[in-house]
Amino acid sequence: MKIYDRSGFPNPARIRIVLAGKGLDSKIEFVPVDLIGAEHKQEAFLAKNPSGVVPVLELEDGTLISEATAITEYLDNLDGDPVFTGKSPLEKGLIHMMQRRAEAMLIDPVGIYFHYGTPGLGEALQAFKSPEWQGRTEWAQRNRQAVEEGMRYFDGILRGRDFVAVDYFSMADITVFAGLAFAEAAGMTVPEELSELRAWRQRVADLPEVRNRSGQQFLAEDARRLGF
Amino acid sequence: MKIYDRSGFPNPARIRIVLAGKGLDSKIEFVPVDLIGAEHKQEAFLAKNPSGVVPVLELEDGTLISEATAITEYLDNLDGDPVFTGKSPLEKGLIHMMQRRAEAMLIDPVGIYFHYGTPGLGEALQAFKSPEWQGRTEWAQRNRQAVEEGMRYFDGILRGRDFVAVDYFSMADITVFAGLAFAEAAGMTVPEELSELRAWRQRVADLPEVRNRSGQQFLAEDARRLGF
Ligand SMILES: N[C@@H](CCC(=O)N[C@@H](CS)C(=O)NCC(=O)O)C(=O)O
Ligand SMILES: N[C@@H](CCC(=O)N[C@@H](CS)C(=O)NCC(=O)O)C(=O)O
Repeated sequence: MKIYDRSGFPNPARIRIVLAGKGLDSKIEFVPVDLIGAEHKQEAFLAKNPSGVVPVLELEDGTLISEATAITEYLDNLDGDPVFTGKSPLEKGLIHMMQRRAEAMLIDPVGIYFHYGTPGLGEALQAFKSPEWQGRTEWAQRNRQAVEEGMRYFDGILRGRDFVAVDYFSMADITVFAGLAFAEAAGMTVPEELSELRAWRQRVADLPEVRNRSGQQFLAEDARRLGF
Repeated sequence: MKIYDRSGFPNPARIRIVLAGKGLDSKIEFVPVDLIGAEHKQEAFLAKNPSGVVPVLELEDGTLISEATAITEYLDNLDGDPVFTGKSPLEKGLIHMMQRRAEAMLIDPVGIYFHYGTPGLGEALQAFKSPEWQGRTEWAQRNRQAVEEGMRYFDGILRGRDFVAVDYFSMADITVFAGLAFAEAAGMTVPEELSELRAWRQRVADLPEVRNRSGQQFLAEDARRLGF
């Protein structure tokens, strides 16, 4: 199997955590995509994923699966023993609910703020990710605000609960974790007073399948190009 | 089990189709939520779903599940025989991928266009769904355009394929179908030339679990209040 992605980016990190958790790391060939150079907006990549984003999984027979949740469903169920997406109907329901909220309340608005409210991934991507329009500044701020609310929401969820959706580390936690790493790259740290979220984040960062896969470490080359 | 929702609305329709397909209709009590009156933005409802949207499933023990995909995962897996969300890992992956695209390319931008580009659900919801801001007109138009592109994308997918994700009617088809019903409510019909999408839509509308659950029929009371 191949994964088209980029080390250091948050959505790719989601899948790298799943691969590590399922012991599939060594079965995967990683194919780097030059996001800063907008390689993923060119025809060759769009043929693999018309949404023009990474990660994308390619199976031996050429079948392509994109969307982090969909790739996770595939990989997690391969051995008949899903550990990230739920075993019982109730677990499946709760994990999908909380993971969707983590996308809607964190990853999605962080992405919009990152691209509209900061230099984002630079010039080559501007036309795709942050075109000029009247509302862009306000749009960025609205989404920044949404991220702050999202963080508060998940802090509340984690009061008296160890993990976001069920009583073990699941796809929902992975999405929140990637969302916070992405927020940090966009200059938004978790406020001090959200102590439950901060404690959970540290616990998750220390899990064996998560360590070194947090999505906060850009490749040196990318960091230089982004001026970090 | 209870479903908090509103007859005639597209996301509730997704779950009504699943309930019909699983033969669960008669086991559900439907509790109508007054969307036009913004009942779903009041504290009592927000305690059930902090995202302030329907549908919401409430189990006998009080457990709450929201997000159409999450409710579908739960209901579809209850009898151990998932027919909408995939049996094999590959089916699960492909269905989740296409369903997510159907949300991102259709339901989400239709929703934004509906609320920003049309009178939407009326005055009570304006502060929540279409606040005043500089970019709102352009934002509406951008999303309208995204819907047109989404329709073209799914027309292309349906060339030489009977269903959106796998070779049977799945959660991905349900989301596309609800997206088109919603688009119609927002005044956007599928263009004549997208003949594959139109033919598919007719086939789907005729399925026993879909008939009369298409989400295009507002309650008479709602239609009157919306001035339809
Ligand atoms: N919904 C997608 C989001 C993927 C995504 O946005 N990936 C980022 C990298 S973290 C990307 O490709 N960004 C470049 C772009 O949007 O142009 C998923 O779940 O996989
Ligand atoms: N992502 C949600 C979307 C639900 C949704 O937007 N529902 C609509 C009814 S079709 C709603 O409650 N709209 C009222 C509002 O957004 O205020 C899901 O999948 O359930």
